[in-house]
Amino acid sequence: MHRPQREQAHALLTERGVDAALFASPASITWLTGFAAPVQTGANPFAAAPPLLWWADGKFTLIVVDGLAPLAAAFDAEEDGRVASYRGYTIDGPIDSARHLRELLQALWSAHGERQHIGMESAALPAAVTGLLAGAMGGARWVVIDGWLAPLRMVKTAEELAKLRENFRLTDIGHAAARAAVVAGAREIDVWEAARTAVEQAAGCRVPMGNDCAVGYRQENIGGWPLDFVLRDGDSIIVDLSTIRHGYWSDSCATYVAGAPSERQRAIHRVASEALALGAGLLRPGAVAGEIDRQVRAFIADAGYPVYPHHTGHGVGVTGHEAPRLIPGSTAVLEAGMVILLEPGIYFPGETGVRVEDAFLIVEDGAQRLTTHDKSLNG
Amino acid sequence: MHRPQREQAHALLTERGVDAALFASPASITWLTGFAAPVQTGANPFAAAPPLLWWADGKFTLIVVDGLAPLAAAFDAEEDGRVASYRGYTIDGPIDSARHLRELLQALWSAHGERQHIGMESAALPAAVTGLLAGAMGGARWVVIDGWLAPLRMVKTAEELAKLRENFRLTDIGHAAARAAVVAGAREIDVWEAARTAVEQAAGCRVPMGNDCAVGYRQENIGGWPLDFVLRDGDSIIVDLSTIRHGYWSDSCATYVAGAPSERQRAIHRVASEALALGAGLLRPGAVAGEIDRQVRAFIADAGYPVYPHHTGHGVGVTGHEAPRLIPGSTAVLEAGMVILLEPGIYFPGETGVRVEDAFLIVEDGAQRLTTHDKSLNG
Repeated sequence: MHRPQREQAHALLTERGVDAALFASPASITWLTGFAAPVQTGANPFAAAPPLLWWADGKFTLIVVDGLAPLAAAFDAEEDGRVASYRGYTIDGPIDSARHLRELLQALWSAHGERQHIGMESAALPAAVTGLLAGAMGGARWVVIDGWLAPLRMVKTAEELAKLRENFRLTDIGHAAARAAVVAGAREIDVWEAARTAVEQAAGCRVPMGNDCAVGYRQENIGGWPLDFVLRDGDSIIVDLSTIRHGYWSDSCATYVAGAPSERQRAIHRVASEALALGAGLLRPGAVAGEIDRQVRAFIADAGYPVYPHHTGHGVGVTGHEAPRLIPGSTAVLEAGMVILLEPGIYFPGETGVRVEDAFLIVEDGAQRLTTHDKSLNG
Repeated sequence: MHRPQREQAHALLTERGVDAALFASPASITWLTGFAAPVQTGANPFAAAPPLLWWADGKFTLIVVDGLAPLAAAFDAEEDGRVASYRGYTIDGPIDSARHLRELLQALWSAHGERQHIGMESAALPAAVTGLLAGAMGGARWVVIDGWLAPLRMVKTAEELAKLRENFRLTDIGHAAARAAVVAGAREIDVWEAARTAVEQAAGCRVPMGNDCAVGYRQENIGGWPLDFVLRDGDSIIVDLSTIRHGYWSDSCATYVAGAPSERQRAIHRVASEALALGAGLLRPGAVAGEIDRQVRAFIADAGYPVYPHHTGHGVGVTGHEAPRLIPGSTAVLEAGMVILLEPGIYFPGETGVRVEDAFLIVEDGAQRLTTHDKSLNG
């Protein structure tokens, strides 16, 4: 699992003169190992740190609190990977996971040879962990490696594409349920529950989900989590769904209306849909992200509508928004194997708004759509 | 909001010779400010760090990425509190939140006078943040303050009790829905969706939820998140629910059976319920946690059943499990104003199991039950 990712990381770190590294960002750890810790209720209460990944001598050691070890077990079967767990929950006395983690880290440290430059993902690594190792460091120095893996993550492997496709399948299911739940009298939260229930029932397990479920008459109607705003006849609602299964994010958006759409809603939906189609037609290897962004924005402006204040699109993978970003001025160049979202929108704050979003896999001669949800205005 | 908590923290830090402090644990930040960041999809993707709280010169500054500022706004109205936000998401160029956070932290640092001992919650504070401040620290030294607030959190304020009661109301609603959904042919995930939907519809918003929804025939049947195990006629299912509204956790458990319970299920349910009642009768100011644990365990053992391998109970608040813990040997003493869970269980791995759990507020002459869900075996 995820062996090519580890080989790429190994090559990059070695090339940059790093002898060993401690990864701490959940995105890096999922990308390197396939392991994704549950996030829905926050950090594991018995862990001394988030899951960590120690790389040294060509091996990757996934470090988790014992309660997460069963979930991480698949990585232990990898030739270049293993799982090391430390004690968390106990009833034999106070929970002392920091001490158990320190002992584990020091054992890992001393199991390997001399080294000078130790990479660390500092934005996610607790200061406590660097403190735990301080006594063992000797003359070695930390090198900040935050963000080093991000460029490597842009082009997906076949294994990653399978995980992403599974998520896009789930978002399609969520959209179908949300669409059916959009009726006058329903609240945003009711529409959300319909989508979530359909997704989790299809997945057969809990699935973290984003992003937006917001009626058009909210003042900030570009997005937002569902609240108890009620859909009245003629109200629009933006439903922007991500699922996070196997640590990989999907993304997708559609706009629904309770009852009959107004002329204005039909008009902006048509323009946004045409903008999406225009952008989709520009996706191919060699295309420049900023140029796609420019053309899609210009299309909305030329149609006489306010241009959306957000990106035109973005990559997706072990995070919901990642490189390449389709924003003004971006010189990023698309490559085959990237997965790109496009999501033009038109918004009238406090009144109504429309956004449509699809995902695409960049292929040799263009792009292949990964989302199949019905984005038409009414069901 | 949460002013008494800040006064207690101020007094403690001052007494221990700390001049300023940087809090990073979500539990500490909620307890000190009332602010709770959304957790359901992981860390905010545009933030350089989790929400932080800077204490200096008697003032508390809540530091959040701009996207979270609206959620944090209430704290800005506090006399001794303010919110400072830094730029996260932008389409004007690369996201550069680490730089914006560094500028904010350095401005906060230099706005205050000389100081020597700076407290930090190191388990949650990213190493990157200590790095951002390194240049400005001068002769000041970090003092690790992890866990300092935990003992102060045990006795709840009236404001906290109101938040906890709201969560116990939601768990009661979740249990009623789960109970009704336990029928032969339903899966764990279906029971879970019933509970979750009822809770979020009642709350009118998304609510992080734990903990267990597991059929008796799972090998590890003490708990676990819902999967697609199917309830057959006569199968038991443990439904252990927490909701996290306003950053405060409820907790609660009941065991349901699809169809008619067996003799064994009735017997262990009766013994577990009597054990719970026994424990509840022991709750009062001055009671010793380890002694309650001992008596409840002894009751199960004396009835001839295997004694549960987990705690007998625990406190609850800004985390799901907190002091005082009711475990063997604990010398913690109960006080009025604590909120305590009791949760004896009897388990036959791979076959069936029962757990019943209630929450209690310790009051002057005993304890007041906060959960009102129906814990009888069948509806």
